[in-house]
Amino acid sequence: MTKLLDKVNYPEDLRQLSVEELKVLADEIREFITHSVSQTGGHLASNLGMVEVAIALHYVFDFKKDRLLWDVGHQCYAHKILTGRKDRFTALRQQGGISGFPNPAESEYDLFTVGHAGTSIATALGMALGAQNNGTDEKIVAIVGDASIVNGLSFEALNNLGLVKRQMLIILNDNSMAIDVTQGAMAKFLSKVRLSHTYDDIRRTTNTILEHLPVIGKPMEGALENFKKAVRMAISPSRLFESLNIPYFGPVDGHDIGSLIKLFGGMSHLQWPGILHVYTKKGKGFAPADDNPRKFHSIGPFEINGEAASLVKGERSFTQAFGDALVELAQADERVVAITAAMPDGTGLARFREMFPDRCYDVGIAESTAVDTAAGLARQGLRPIVCIYSTFLQRSYDQIFQEVALQNLPVIFCVDRSGLVGNDGPTHHGLMDIGFMRMLPNMVLVSPAGEFEIKDALAFALSHAGPVAIRYPRDIVPNGQIEQATSQKPFQLGKSVTVRQGGDNIAIVALGSVLAEALAAAEQLADKNIDATVINARFAKPVDEDIIALAMEGTHIITAEDHSLAGGFGSAVLEAAAGKTLEGDCPAPRPSRGTIITLGGGDYFIGVDSRTAQMDEIGISAAKIAETVEKLLHRINNQAIENSR
Amino acid sequence: MTKLLDKVNYPEDLRQLSVEELKVLADEIREFITHSVSQTGGHLASNLGMVEVAIALHYVFDFKKDRLLWDVGHQCYAHKILTGRKDRFTALRQQGGISGFPNPAESEYDLFTVGHAGTSIATALGMALGAQNNGTDEKIVAIVGDASIVNGLSFEALNNLGLVKRQMLIILNDNSMAIDVTQGAMAKFLSKVRLSHTYDDIRRTTNTILEHLPVIGKPMEGALENFKKAVRMAISPSRLFESLNIPYFGPVDGHDIGSLIKLFGGMSHLQWPGILHVYTKKGKGFAPADDNPRKFHSIGPFEINGEAASLVKGERSFTQAFGDALVELAQADERVVAITAAMPDGTGLARFREMFPDRCYDVGIAESTAVDTAAGLARQGLRPIVCIYSTFLQRSYDQIFQEVALQNLPVIFCVDRSGLVGNDGPTHHGLMDIGFMRMLPNMVLVSPAGEFEIKDALAFALSHAGPVAIRYPRDIVPNGQIEQATSQKPFQLGKSVTVRQGGDNIAIVALGSVLAEALAAAEQLADKNIDATVINARFAKPVDEDIIALAMEGTHIITAEDHSLAGGFGSAVLEAAAGKTLEGDCPAPRPSRGTIITLGGGDYFIGVDSRTAQMDEIGISAAKIAETVEKLLHRINNQAIENSR
Repeated sequence: MTKLLDKVNYPEDLRQLSVEELKVLADEIREFITHSVSQTGGHLASNLGMVEVAIALHYVFDFKKDRLLWDVGHQCYAHKILTGRKDRFTALRQQGGISGFPNPAESEYDLFTVGHAGTSIATALGMALGAQNNGTDEKIVAIVGDASIVNGLSFEALNNLGLVKRQMLIILNDNSMAIDVTQGAMAKFLSKVRLSHTYDDIRRTTNTILEHLPVIGKPMEGALENFKKAVRMAISPSRLFESLNIPYFGPVDGHDIGSLIKLFGGMSHLQWPGILHVYTKKGKGFAPADDNPRKFHSIGPFEINGEAASLVKGERSFTQAFGDALVELAQADERVVAITAAMPDGTGLARFREMFPDRCYDVGIAESTAVDTAAGLARQGLRPIVCIYSTFLQRSYDQIFQEVALQNLPVIFCVDRSGLVGNDGPTHHGLMDIGFMRMLPNMVLVSPAGEFEIKDALAFALSHAGPVAIRYPRDIVPNGQIEQATSQKPFQLGKSVTVRQGGDNIAIVALGSVLAEALAAAEQLADKNIDATVINARFAKPVDEDIIALAMEGTHIITAEDHSLAGGFGSAVLEAAAGKTLEGDCPAPRPSRGTIITLGGGDYFIGVDSRTAQMDEIGISAAKIAETVEKLLHRINNQAIENSR
Repeated sequence: MTKLLDKVNYPEDLRQLSVEELKVLADEIREFITHSVSQTGGHLASNLGMVEVAIALHYVFDFKKDRLLWDVGHQCYAHKILTGRKDRFTALRQQGGISGFPNPAESEYDLFTVGHAGTSIATALGMALGAQNNGTDEKIVAIVGDASIVNGLSFEALNNLGLVKRQMLIILNDNSMAIDVTQGAMAKFLSKVRLSHTYDDIRRTTNTILEHLPVIGKPMEGALENFKKAVRMAISPSRLFESLNIPYFGPVDGHDIGSLIKLFGGMSHLQWPGILHVYTKKGKGFAPADDNPRKFHSIGPFEINGEAASLVKGERSFTQAFGDALVELAQADERVVAITAAMPDGTGLARFREMFPDRCYDVGIAESTAVDTAAGLARQGLRPIVCIYSTFLQRSYDQIFQEVALQNLPVIFCVDRSGLVGNDGPTHHGLMDIGFMRMLPNMVLVSPAGEFEIKDALAFALSHAGPVAIRYPRDIVPNGQIEQATSQKPFQLGKSVTVRQGGDNIAIVALGSVLAEALAAAEQLADKNIDATVINARFAKPVDEDIIALAMEGTHIITAEDHSLAGGFGSAVLEAAAGKTLEGDCPAPRPSRGTIITLGGGDYFIGVDSRTAQMDEIGISAAKIAETVEKLLHRINNQAIENSR
């Protein structure tokens, strides 16, 4: 049987279908997404929930001209399917394929590459002001989830909606997910709204809104107030949004395509900003995801057995190693508390939270507040552990600066997903955490190389009287051999560990998980009779003076890090070496200094690919490190010959 | 006549006084503050408004044990006067004196060194959770202003108040100031509340709250609901805070000491968090400040002529030069729009706003949203100029990364108060902007050296197809001679300008306003027969390849910048030079490379002092630059002798 989806490639194809056909199409798209994600991995539950909304939006609006802004963006699969990218889903999140997030490089229908929460209302505000300024009439639509609307950025933008004197539609995509999980006041408010509305209420609300919509094309003075009054007479208004002066309409059923088409159509003619509150269901239509949306939020490939699905099992990750180490340390030290910003599972906090529910705080998608909460807890004598992904920690940069580093408070940042993250791509890499944090006085930056070191690094951080950030990647921990090579020496502030003593005057200084690559590189070099030293740097700040001394004494240094070259660990090594020139009474004669070469990410955004491929791309795979060592030695030998002539 | 203030040094002294005496004391403190600030400069209007609140707080609470958290903190002078620091006001904001912001190094009564907005509720949340965890009963009090409460951080923290199951008092300090100035929904909401309350209403509210306070020491189930119900019957509740489930009480008169003492006393026994809304008047009691609180927000020393005051006039600042350049360019280019986050005066936008009110957006203290609004405007084809101080731009780091740099949108950041800021001290220095922004692909970083260059830099930025940040200090522009020396060459991407060609193989590479110091250093060196080249770097990113080539060819380079050494411009020069080693077919023989020395801020927080003294402290004054050059040449000569042996 031919599927409707076979005929639908672009929004214009949608408009050939009846509402009944669109309903069938929605189910086909859900099936398509489930099948695709089972092959490639990706976000599942959130995408299954947004199919009807995406269909109705593209049916009503013309987003070649109109503007659609996604928040977080991982729920945009149906949108991608409907905008000419259906055939590219076989390479979803793969190199050369399409991203799991909106991406203007892929399609004119995508406006911003996003992946962080809370941006849609704020960027839509700017786009609406731009249209207002340009005097153009394109419609602006922003989608925001109930988990994202609690982010400070969303609130700030809502607070400034009064600047907009034209159409701007905000769709609040409310799925029970965040409400179940978070404790925030906004979540409670939305939960109350939900509990006070039966399904019949929701249908009535839809009709009330549609009946009272101002006559199309006739925006008039007072139309908004009349509209709101009429709606208010029929349904209870939202005190929260009303008191912020934001016209609010809803809640309505986000899976009723026919109503959504009418609502979007009617509301597209409003001459003021407004929120339409829609209920959707995460994981809709796929039983395992429906039952367990958290498990199916972002996953690797899985098997579809009839309707059941079993996740393909991964190996032990840095995240798991951290989670277990934290539990162990927390058992021994009552001062240990943990804070996260809606990432308890992703950061390995689940076990800790289960064991110590009173010592675990989840503030929702509010990274800034997570850090300030930790600062307050530290001021009270506790030892807070902040668990936030590297890329989202950028959201709390100023709080790390002022409320933590400037106060020299002993807050421990456990920076998961630092470095290259693989298939999530440029919005999610954690390539800047060393750079933005090593400028902060008092801050200590640690990079454990494996499972044992994670635990030791945590123990060190707990013994340290100031702030410490511990970074580790979204990766499996290296095998036991590497662990052995790290010597299991306890962490000492600013002390590296030499894990392989070579005979040649060349040292590979590896930071964190890159150590495994450095050791493999040394093995490859040994086959070519090059006997390199390998050092586990452990600290990106302070840089070990012994590493600098090595360079001063003539050893050639190659730093390797899973971070941007700009401002990174290698950069810190260069700075420290430069700082030696005028130090003390007399410098060592310059020609005897070793050369310092730094390996890390270059000045461009790294796309979607496997983490392994990305590491090779930036030159920190074993093969690339070995290649660099060889090249350097070749240069040095050439030069020595030239000098001796 | 002996003043009451002579006898009051610590909170315990307050408790010896009657309410009538406290009223007299309040006037004396206001007089003391006005006199002090007229001598030293500082924040005036906000401090005059907070005298009664500070007195009542210290009268009721014991902040040796209880916890007082300020927001922004520039309104803490009365608090400082009442906590043993009265005599140190002669050195307010001076080296060795007291800071204009709270500072734990000064007093056990200060808990956080703050200066940025929106932190008090979030850190208080952490402290309350800490007390909850520790099972201790200290009272927690957070003060937040009506301008700060709109910051996303404040909202996120309010959204998480449900975590707190104990006392936590938030004092919303509402002065008409922010309401007059900002357009946000929260400001409108507060304004509506204000307009709907007569002075009699406010008095009645105070009495209603006091009458219905639960019996002290008898916290019981349902007490909160009963209390709220009772208060609600008498006064209209705040729908906004109520819908966020936050107990709200007020508004009350923030200058009525007697009532404040009773209110604080009563509310200190509540067993849940709550907001008390107090009205205060900026500039109260000092007519000129009362009439013009914006002018007297943060000022230099002024003269008190009877009750009139005339500000001591400063010279032309980088800020003014920027403001005028912007107006000129905006007249020629309709696409130019400007966005700020409650800093229209401080960033020199006032004239632009007056001339182009429809092209100027002030989003209130919401830096993240300012940047996203700009991103949206840029997506619509406009050329947004974001005007935010360097230190506050840290608040929008993630937005600059994702919504601007990753999209390669042509947003122009005019980063005022970058570098050392003088008397505001460590919370306000802008020493990290190069470091955190040069890691961003697509970002271009420009540092104009003077007035002409600001205009040229802006013109360059408008002609560039991606994001550009232009940084300049809180300082006067250098004199015309320096301007001449910059050659007035138009800006070209990544091109420096040699402003003094020296004969010796040494080059001082100065970034931005440090150029004036570098040229003066070269003059001093010329007197000692050292003929140094001086280069105006202009770009911190991309680094001019010609500068690197100079070093490769044997010229010794000294970089000088008004920025942290870590991750700064000098660091970028070191990285670029290191990157040359393996470039091309064969390297230049290493011994001929020039040495690179970098000058800038070290790894510690720089305290309150004059900007001139701070520049000397970090080695970028003319004298210090010259000294470094001499030292380097001495080393090089010594080494040459050693090598020739």
